[in-house]
Amino acid sequence: MITFIFDNKSAIPMYEQLYRFIKGEISSGSIKSGEKLPSKRKLAEHLNISIVTVEGAYNQLLAEGYIRSEPRSGYFVSPVEIRHNDNKNIVSTKSAENRVISNFYKYNFTTSSASAESFPFSLWAKLMRETLSEKERMLLLSSPAQGVYELRKEISEYLMNYRGVSVSPDSIVVGAGSEYLMSIMIPLIGRDKVFGYEDPGYPRIHKVLERNDVKCKSVGLDEHGLICEELDDIDVIHVTPSHHFPLGVVMPVQRRMKLLAWANKSDSRYVIEDDYDSEFRFTGKPIPALKSLDEHDKVIYLNTFTRSLAPSLRISYMVLPDSLINKYRNETNYFSCPVPTFEQFTLASFMRKGGFERHIGRMKNICKSKRDAFVNEITKSSINATFSGVNDGLHMLMQVNNSMTEKELVKAAASVNILMRGLSEYYIEPHAHKCPESTVVIGYAGLEEQEIHDAVKLLEKAWK
Amino acid sequence: MITFIFDNKSAIPMYEQLYRFIKGEISSGSIKSGEKLPSKRKLAEHLNISIVTVEGAYNQLLAEGYIRSEPRSGYFVSPVEIRHNDNKNIVSTKSAENRVISNFYKYNFTTSSASAESFPFSLWAKLMRETLSEKERMLLLSSPAQGVYELRKEISEYLMNYRGVSVSPDSIVVGAGSEYLMSIMIPLIGRDKVFGYEDPGYPRIHKVLERNDVKCKSVGLDEHGLICEELDDIDVIHVTPSHHFPLGVVMPVQRRMKLLAWANKSDSRYVIEDDYDSEFRFTGKPIPALKSLDEHDKVIYLNTFTRSLAPSLRISYMVLPDSLINKYRNETNYFSCPVPTFEQFTLASFMRKGGFERHIGRMKNICKSKRDAFVNEITKSSINATFSGVNDGLHMLMQVNNSMTEKELVKAAASVNILMRGLSEYYIEPHAHKCPESTVVIGYAGLEEQEIHDAVKLLEKAWK
Repeated sequence: MITFIFDNKSAIPMYEQLYRFIKGEISSGSIKSGEKLPSKRKLAEHLNISIVTVEGAYNQLLAEGYIRSEPRSGYFVSPVEIRHNDNKNIVSTKSAENRVISNFYKYNFTTSSASAESFPFSLWAKLMRETLSEKERMLLLSSPAQGVYELRKEISEYLMNYRGVSVSPDSIVVGAGSEYLMSIMIPLIGRDKVFGYEDPGYPRIHKVLERNDVKCKSVGLDEHGLICEELDDIDVIHVTPSHHFPLGVVMPVQRRMKLLAWANKSDSRYVIEDDYDSEFRFTGKPIPALKSLDEHDKVIYLNTFTRSLAPSLRISYMVLPDSLINKYRNETNYFSCPVPTFEQFTLASFMRKGGFERHIGRMKNICKSKRDAFVNEITKSSINATFSGVNDGLHMLMQVNNSMTEKELVKAAASVNILMRGLSEYYIEPHAHKCPESTVVIGYAGLEEQEIHDAVKLLEKAWK
Repeated sequence: MITFIFDNKSAIPMYEQLYRFIKGEISSGSIKSGEKLPSKRKLAEHLNISIVTVEGAYNQLLAEGYIRSEPRSGYFVSPVEIRHNDNKNIVSTKSAENRVISNFYKYNFTTSSASAESFPFSLWAKLMRETLSEKERMLLLSSPAQGVYELRKEISEYLMNYRGVSVSPDSIVVGAGSEYLMSIMIPLIGRDKVFGYEDPGYPRIHKVLERNDVKCKSVGLDEHGLICEELDDIDVIHVTPSHHFPLGVVMPVQRRMKLLAWANKSDSRYVIEDDYDSEFRFTGKPIPALKSLDEHDKVIYLNTFTRSLAPSLRISYMVLPDSLINKYRNETNYFSCPVPTFEQFTLASFMRKGGFERHIGRMKNICKSKRDAFVNEITKSSINATFSGVNDGLHMLMQVNNSMTEKELVKAAASVNILMRGLSEYYIEPHAHKCPESTVVIGYAGLEEQEIHDAVKLLEKAWK
């Protein structure tokens, strides 16, 4: 029978601990394909936990296809070819790799690991129930193409109060994730345009541009962010001025003005401001968005709730300049908004009632103290490291001065069960732009403070 | 020295009031570029506030690049030109023409008007509540790219039982609407391919293809559906074999085999089977999908729950052939599924518990009796009309033999407060394919039987 010791002190719910354990056993082959799992009741008795916990774990395994249920017979481990698909994913895509590989590491310092424990699930569930009874059959009507007005109004107020951006709800388009919005936006701008992206940067952006079959070109960064001199033969540039990923640079106002001046030079030029992570500024107040300086309506503002709320909520939005919003209305309005009205109403009510603001505040405190814990532990330790990009966002850079190369650092960390990525992995055209040496990207949002403490102890040994 | 009166009653923190004030002075040019700011201590004394407040304001200005700090020398205004951006034009919304127009008519016979009254909202709400309490925090996890396994399993069983299609849940990709799935599918097939579409047909399909910037070509229909002889220079054809929109043709098996034979002739050829409305066959049993005859894995099957459940539920799915599903996994798996896990779990449970089957059965009865009501009322009336495409789907064609042209029929109907569309409106290249004369498209799902009765009385007068 599956035997497993729960960590009662962990913030990870018990069902999830059990789910992770069984998934690990299946992935490693300890539980073989076709094998029958114990019944929920038996396993609950055996582990002295409630049936609901076992059920939660089994349901997740079912949902992910690791096991299958046979009526009146029980739960069986799925045949290998299903999991074989998972293995293919490991080879081919980084984010999938993250998800699967990360289960084999005890400590996951990649930036995709996020903290969901602080999400106010009970408030959210309450608002869902309220939406259900208040909106009733209205939930069956299709959403306006741009998204439900109530939500766009809340977003426009949020942008005014927190990002210094004054836009009408009418300029906002709600969509299911940034990739979706990019695929709406690109035909509006024109697929014949040259799209620039930051290098280093999110590999995902580069992939989305490639999938949309547009010409794209990488642009380097200096200590103030994007190098505007490299923009000459580019029409549209995707930037993260609030907090560059992964360098953590906050673009100063001079560079912002320079970037806008570049955009103003031609009608066909646009700046796509990806304001991801802007909620997580730990020192001082958030820096207003580039969009707030945009006098000539050249900035397309893009942000998402997926990162600040929960990964299952694929709700993103963009603010389109007048020229594009009119084109959007004429050409794309026959589309329906892909986000269900139910989630849109719930989120609007969450924002209206201050839940979003409180959640961000709470998240900021949690993440700030995790960040402090990491920096303090490293500083106290024998590791000689230099940090950058520590004031904002959910990751930082750490240059380790122990004469190990980046690859050696990552490998040594892996040898003590710690997953992290080298900075060079985020360079899309490594030959064009020089990567700082011996630097790793640290995402700390997914770890508990105690785990951070333990992990640094291990790193100290590994990096000796 | 900077002089400024704080608003003690304001909810804005003092440091932020000061920051805003200084920023305004810099932006307006009252404090000039290069000018030295007072030291923190001096300004604090002058304004009778704490040094911490001044520090907060200066740090924010520093972070945004409005000022710079020079060691042992002080704070200086950075050289930059910034202008105010407070008053921006607010765009007025032009709502979708269709939705506004339809509000001016008492009776709406367009096909976009659908019946939501039979949707089992209370069962759905109950399942939503169950999902909420059963899945709990699991709802916060991101959905696998292809969609939640539980839902894909239900879809695969539905396809087996109702459409004669045997596919593994692993070949199914869940997405938010057909447009979304098309935009995922097209790059997999290749944007260099020539895409064919039925003419007449859904204008939406043609638009989606155009938006994806692929070469496309219209293909005509005869009484058996798509004319295969027109497919020679086409790679991928979008068809609605179960029930052509708007002609209502059900493609007979000979034509289906001919279409598959065409597809089998080249590796790069595919058929996109859009199986929309296939649930609503009133006479006899449903005709198996084209996909069920597809021995060489050349058919991409596409269907949606939006029409059969509720317009707000943007849940569609496609079945990809092996060649494409592998490509999908390698290239697109870093995408997240845009449909929230909450809706996916709820729909899976709705299907598992037989709710979907019962709902379709009920809808069929309701729509069948609406169809009968319309046909009977017309037959009893003085209107001399011929129907076609009445056995399936939620619309039919009506040719009116009163020597009025199509345009005159539509206009006369409008004069008595009735909205309907002429068949010619669905011809994308009207010169290439000949449209039957004096024919209107009747969508009856959105009207009550009494309304149908009243509307026909009005039509009788209008078409005299």
